[in-house]
Amino acid sequence: MTPSAFQVLASDGAARRARLTTPHGDVETPIFMPVGTQGTVKSLTPADLRDAGAQIVLGNTYHLFLRPGHELVAALGGLHRFMGWDGPLLTDSGGFQVFSLSKLRKISEEGVSFRSPVDGSARMLTPELSIEIQQALGADVIHPLDECLAYPVTRAATEASLALTLRWAARAQAVHRDGSKPGVALFGIVQGGVYEDLRRRAVEETVALGFDGYAIGGMAVGEPKAALHQLTALVAGLLPPDRPRYLMGVGKPDDLVEAVARGVDMFDCVLPTRNARNGQAFTADGPVTIKQARYTRDPAPLEPSCSCYACRHFSRAYLRHLFMAEELLAYRLLSLHNLTFFLELMGAMRAAIATGAFAAFRTRFLERYRVSSDLVPPWSSDRGQDLS
Amino acid sequence: MTPSAFQVLASDGAARRARLTTPHGDVETPIFMPVGTQGTVKSLTPADLRDAGAQIVLGNTYHLFLRPGHELVAALGGLHRFMGWDGPLLTDSGGFQVFSLSKLRKISEEGVSFRSPVDGSARMLTPELSIEIQQALGADVIHPLDECLAYPVTRAATEASLALTLRWAARAQAVHRDGSKPGVALFGIVQGGVYEDLRRRAVEETVALGFDGYAIGGMAVGEPKAALHQLTALVAGLLPPDRPRYLMGVGKPDDLVEAVARGVDMFDCVLPTRNARNGQAFTADGPVTIKQARYTRDPAPLEPSCSCYACRHFSRAYLRHLFMAEELLAYRLLSLHNLTFFLELMGAMRAAIATGAFAAFRTRFLERYRVSSDLVPPWSSDRGQDLS
Repeated sequence: MTPSAFQVLASDGAARRARLTTPHGDVETPIFMPVGTQGTVKSLTPADLRDAGAQIVLGNTYHLFLRPGHELVAALGGLHRFMGWDGPLLTDSGGFQVFSLSKLRKISEEGVSFRSPVDGSARMLTPELSIEIQQALGADVIHPLDECLAYPVTRAATEASLALTLRWAARAQAVHRDGSKPGVALFGIVQGGVYEDLRRRAVEETVALGFDGYAIGGMAVGEPKAALHQLTALVAGLLPPDRPRYLMGVGKPDDLVEAVARGVDMFDCVLPTRNARNGQAFTADGPVTIKQARYTRDPAPLEPSCSCYACRHFSRAYLRHLFMAEELLAYRLLSLHNLTFFLELMGAMRAAIATGAFAAFRTRFLERYRVSSDLVPPWSSDRGQDLS
Repeated sequence: MTPSAFQVLASDGAARRARLTTPHGDVETPIFMPVGTQGTVKSLTPADLRDAGAQIVLGNTYHLFLRPGHELVAALGGLHRFMGWDGPLLTDSGGFQVFSLSKLRKISEEGVSFRSPVDGSARMLTPELSIEIQQALGADVIHPLDECLAYPVTRAATEASLALTLRWAARAQAVHRDGSKPGVALFGIVQGGVYEDLRRRAVEETVALGFDGYAIGGMAVGEPKAALHQLTALVAGLLPPDRPRYLMGVGKPDDLVEAVARGVDMFDCVLPTRNARNGQAFTADGPVTIKQARYTRDPAPLEPSCSCYACRHFSRAYLRHLFMAEELLAYRLLSLHNLTFFLELMGAMRAAIATGAFAAFRTRFLERYRVSSDLVPPWSSDRGQDLS
């Protein structure tokens, strides 16, 4: 990727309005990427994703490696064609999943060996194989295998893990240089846990290796909210300004706004789709738990100003009925609404940054969102797979 | 409903091409009605139903009575508005469901008492209440509560049951006359089990009561296929030619063709949606069981000539992957395809009847469909709820 493939169009404080160019089209940032774990954003079609305003979709290397297998996807023309999404695709490295999902995993200098939860087979993921899988899938933005630590972890263990991640990153680069199609971007992943000096070192050494963009990894894994914001600001502030910054696995709507304020350009998270399947809808007034009795006869849409199909056609009462009756349509309509909400939020932030009005937008959004969301219990951690 | 609300446009043998006029629009027959058990055709939106070619949707009185309750639906503007379907709606009487789903049911002259599977509450459904529920839902075509027998049942029990169904039908008529909106059609239900003389008597006495249309009930409940065809021909042949004929709960694609050949105009069945969720796709060459290994790398769509979104965008390999990974999108795409297949089949029959080519169509369709479908194991009984 040439430097011109990422262009900062406007800045407002640390927040940036930019454009990422990929072989499958441009991505206007800041952007949120719906998570298509197993070759589908759960319950939704590519047409739905377009309607929701999606520009780029994330695929999970780990999951597609195990089922249906990257060779099968490649034989059928690549992940774009397989899943019917012709826009930009980003794949993660498989690192987060292999560490959070696999039993009996064993880490070595070579890579990670583990048992497949799909069929029990013995598997090994190496930095080389991770890139080869992502090349076979045909993603536009790919990542080197990294070790993703849980929270909390000692400083010594974090330091050793960071060193391994950096050695793996160099190995991934070699495979990328040799085999990736022109225009495919390899993003480096900045680890370092909650230790500021390690995060600084991680930025320095990752940038020294030289990548097309930079992901901030190992966040939203259970650390305090203050640490998330502080480390995001630290890392984003140290990264080269002419490259995209991607905060992996984040997050809640207020976290997105806070991270954009700190200079982050790209996000992914399972929250809009996973919480939809748990009956939670996101609105500007905070989350709505649709099964609550107060919505039983509520004729209003989830969000009157929302343009999604669910809000244009159905009442909260109907959505609640579908959810209580465990109807598949409930999960689909709430997923569509939530993604629309996340993507409209990103669009509103892009517009605010472009006109120098981001600070005011941030204050207004957070005030309205937080006041209301305090009324409902907080939901569980926002990082994870979009599986169950 | 005035007699002009059903107009026979063409005949070809016993097959009819007709038009049913309802307060929510016309229905071109022969027609298949997707089943919207709980106020939704599972996994699909009204827009999907339109895309599939649906003209009229069936709602289940029993299910909507229990959850969310007809009063709630009425308070929210009726079932059309509640579920976002502005076309014609037909509701069944609740009879089939109360007899097949409810534990501890007790039948009396007054009606059926049972326990709600939703919340365990004691409920009673009477001929009067059944009509009141359907009026509250706002359906365009409604039915009197009937006793739907299993198979086999003795002649004596069938005769007694038929007499009860006829007494209930008269009570339903009274409530309909007093309280239904103008244009709402009440169809009588012809029972009588597998006994030809009882079916004759059922037609005679039901027609004597006088209804806007006639449903053939108590079929596809386990009787031999020959009995289904034979009794359908018998009953359809005795019913008044100027009224619509609806064969309840039927059926498989070949059964639809055979029943149209015997003079039936309307059908409903859970097969296209329920079998979709079990991984079965209907095609002109017979059913496809998508999980079979032979589709693992199959780049072809389910049916090359099909116009549905699934066939226009996805390979059998992708649909198989979604199904094996238990992705919600699998159920949705297969449901959409199956309904499209059923509705295109009805459209093809309408065109064939209109041009006097139905006999040739029937032979051609059955030859192609049956040859292929013999390759896969037959699936289970096609009557039932669209629930699991």
